Amino acid sequence: MEAKLNELKQRLGEIADLNNAASVLSWDQLTHMPPGGAEARGRQLATLARIAQEKQTDEALGKLIDELLVETQSLPAGNVQRAMVRVAKIDFDRATRVPPEFVARIYQHIAQSYQVWAEARQKNDFSATQPYLEKTLDLSREYSAFFPEAEHVADPLIDQSDYGMKVSTVRPLFAELRSRLVPIIQAITSQPAADDSCLKQPIPADAQVAFGEKIIRKLGYDFERGRQDKSAHPFTTRFSINDVRITTRVREDDFSEAFFSTTHEAGHAMYEQGIDQALEGTNLASGTSAGVHESQSRLWENIVSRGKDFWIFAYPLLQEAFPAQFGNVSQDTFYRAINKVQRSLIRTDADEVTYNLHVMIRFDLEVGMLEGNLAVRHLPEAWNERYRSDLGILPPSDKDGCMQDVHWYGGTIGGAFQGYTLGNVLSALFYRQALKDRPGIPEEIRHGKFDGLHAWMQEHIYRHGRIFTTDELVMRCTGGALTIEPYIEYLKQKYGELYDL
Amino acid sequence: MEAKLNELKQRLGEIADLNNAASVLSWDQLTHMPPGGAEARGRQLATLARIAQEKQTDEALGKLIDELLVETQSLPAGNVQRAMVRVAKIDFDRATRVPPEFVARIYQHIAQSYQVWAEARQKNDFSATQPYLEKTLDLSREYSAFFPEAEHVADPLIDQSDYGMKVSTVRPLFAELRSRLVPIIQAITSQPAADDSCLKQPIPADAQVAFGEKIIRKLGYDFERGRQDKSAHPFTTRFSINDVRITTRVREDDFSEAFFSTTHEAGHAMYEQGIDQALEGTNLASGTSAGVHESQSRLWENIVSRGKDFWIFAYPLLQEAFPAQFGNVSQDTFYRAINKVQRSLIRTDADEVTYNLHVMIRFDLEVGMLEGNLAVRHLPEAWNERYRSDLGILPPSDKDGCMQDVHWYGGTIGGAFQGYTLGNVLSALFYRQALKDRPGIPEEIRHGKFDGLHAWMQEHIYRHGRIFTTDELVMRCTGGALTIEPYIEYLKQKYGELYDL
Repeated sequence: MEAKLNELKQRLGEIADLNNAASVLSWDQLTHMPPGGAEARGRQLATLARIAQEKQTDEALGKLIDELLVETQSLPAGNVQRAMVRVAKIDFDRATRVPPEFVARIYQHIAQSYQVWAEARQKNDFSATQPYLEKTLDLSREYSAFFPEAEHVADPLIDQSDYGMKVSTVRPLFAELRSRLVPIIQAITSQPAADDSCLKQPIPADAQVAFGEKIIRKLGYDFERGRQDKSAHPFTTRFSINDVRITTRVREDDFSEAFFSTTHEAGHAMYEQGIDQALEGTNLASGTSAGVHESQSRLWENIVSRGKDFWIFAYPLLQEAFPAQFGNVSQDTFYRAINKVQRSLIRTDADEVTYNLHVMIRFDLEVGMLEGNLAVRHLPEAWNERYRSDLGILPPSDKDGCMQDVHWYGGTIGGAFQGYTLGNVLSALFYRQALKDRPGIPEEIRHGKFDGLHAWMQEHIYRHGRIFTTDELVMRCTGGALTIEPYIEYLKQKYGELYDL
Repeated sequence: MEAKLNELKQRLGEIADLNNAASVLSWDQLTHMPPGGAEARGRQLATLARIAQEKQTDEALGKLIDELLVETQSLPAGNVQRAMVRVAKIDFDRATRVPPEFVARIYQHIAQSYQVWAEARQKNDFSATQPYLEKTLDLSREYSAFFPEAEHVADPLIDQSDYGMKVSTVRPLFAELRSRLVPIIQAITSQPAADDSCLKQPIPADAQVAFGEKIIRKLGYDFERGRQDKSAHPFTTRFSINDVRITTRVREDDFSEAFFSTTHEAGHAMYEQGIDQALEGTNLASGTSAGVHESQSRLWENIVSRGKDFWIFAYPLLQEAFPAQFGNVSQDTFYRAINKVQRSLIRTDADEVTYNLHVMIRFDLEVGMLEGNLAVRHLPEAWNERYRSDLGILPPSDKDGCMQDVHWYGGTIGGAFQGYTLGNVLSALFYRQALKDRPGIPEEIRHGKFDGLHAWMQEHIYRHGRIFTTDELVMRCTGGALTIEPYIEYLKQKYGELYDL
């Protein structure tokens, strides 16, 4: 077994090296690459992807994995070797079920669809994108059909980002969450909106970046094993456990833009940086799912860095860094500003509370399209109707309606949204458990000490990489199944206090 | 033939993509990578190199090339297809002659040797490096032996960077050059040294970088297809004809450090940016040899940006950018400062005139070692003796003597140095020809117009990539063989005027 495991490691290591090399090329493309480099970069990325795919679908690898599946069966759950083989099986099956000609076809279509969307969105012209979206829907169904054992047509698509999650588990969870959120949002928005003008004062970009970096260093982001650059859309990428990079986007007239994207991405990055070094180079050396990943970005962005305790520590630093902007703004005014709740059109600008409604609308609509219950041509009306009923506002245009997100236009339909809200739910679940184990955390945060919270996440989440699935992690951490209760409690407590509910 | 050529292009394109991807990873390693990333990066680069090597030595590729060699024989010299096949044959032979186990062995040894040198150099301890250097010499000879048809043991090593050059052609050229340079240097250094204190005034790094970039934009470096970053040692790298990047190193107390490294690297980069777009993705899309490459860096660094005509245009801009530093320095004082000639110990700090003596000493010593006429243990004495006889100074330590350059300690012995001086010789040869074809160039330069010179290089050098060898290029440009006369004339005229010789 030892020799076979070594061969598996060697093969998976090679695939990881190719994928990580591709990530470096993509990072460069989005941060530093001059415009002229685009064409060759596309070619280089395609070549790396093709070679990685060849290696990922090598029959000899499949045979090796099948043999090892039997041989590692008797190892205990959570054993690294066993997990490595289990995950290798998932990745191998996913890669081999889908024929290369289909992969080429869908990539080509999506590239076209993205181009059409980018132009049509400017012109608010949904009809231009409609035939592309219809083909994307066909291709998404075709993808799903490569996994005939799936319970629901959307499940194989959800599986790509949130392994093990199903429509049958997500749908009731979201229905319950919606029914609990709606009254909270109604109660909040029936009161006068918070004044966030203090956030809109001009601050030089470099000073904003420096302040954000000072803070995430304290949170536990390790700059010896990472760096921050600027890009059009903030993201986290990792080339190794010891090289996990983030990007941010700065607006000189909006402090919240760069600051909260920085703490958000730092949350993603600390997860990747915290994976056990023993997993380096294996298929286990990354976050286990989109939901758990998002739990970490949302934990550090929202629960921590939009929290009252955090600003007891950080507000004096902010005032010191930007006396002209915040010297005469009270801590309470600032705290209310960064937690302003409002019914809005755009998901990416939404506050912590209403955000989930945006996500759940998309989830329902994409599942509806996949099921055949919603035709693409009816998407704009369906979208607007849901915004009216759930958020109480009517999008004035498709540009700011069903054309606002790239996901459906630059990817498959299905599986891309649920992770955002699962992340919110999980962030509160994990945080509540951390508080149970270490009740001093809020007091530590008030003193700018984040080691305790970071160490808890490290111990219970980060170090395991992909060893456990989302459900297994939740069970191990909390002793129970995924539940929305801690998240609802968290929102009620925080916003109850803010809005005197 | 068409189908075979397409297959060849596809195969070479894949190899180019892998090598260019590796170049992106190396660039990142030297410019932006956090320290933690080093270990994984080594692994990723090794994987890319191994896969590229497998593809480069594929028997099917060899067979295809051999068939195409016959089929393209009747095409005219300079035909792109014919050149592609010719160059593919050279690269394939070079890759297949050398067994993979040898490649692994030499890389491993060199990595160790480099580490030992980096530490031993600090301690001025040549004896620590001696056994490593002895093994490097053995391995360099072993490499050479894979090419038994070579006239001289050093020729296969020279061939790697300056294809077609041989000890039998370089040695007499260098002997002649030395005999002509020594009296010029003697005449110059018998006069009082120029005062270069104006260059040692403090200037903020960012302002220096901005000034350098403003200048190279005028020279013709295209920032839409490139960018400049900082690194420990300046270099040029290209990921495609349309993405050619340079780096610089700034010293706030020495203006010449960043400025001349920037014009130097821009010279390399304009060569790569100027390659015919039709060659993109083929094996012809890079400079043809180290010597021709260096002719371009030295042309733009020395002949242009250390020239009198250039500063007639640029000195007012410099004074405007840095009035505190240069407002009261005369143009003549500045011009003398940037062209100060002195007998010195360190190659990389040497002026344009003495630089070649440093290079030729190294060339003779490495050829001597390869021939078995110089034992590694005698290298320090031999080095010092040559510095005494050629440059009239005795190195006070091996640190600033035979341990100063990384080349022998971090690579093979042989072939790494001749290109520097060939480049100087070629820069003057090409420049003289450009002046013959377009006599207005100096006047254009005085007005900050570099299009004429750039267009000549583009037409006669850049666009051809690797289609022609160094000798073929020289013959096509000048109608004759490589000669040192234009270079000697250039030095005599410039320094004759500066030093009233």
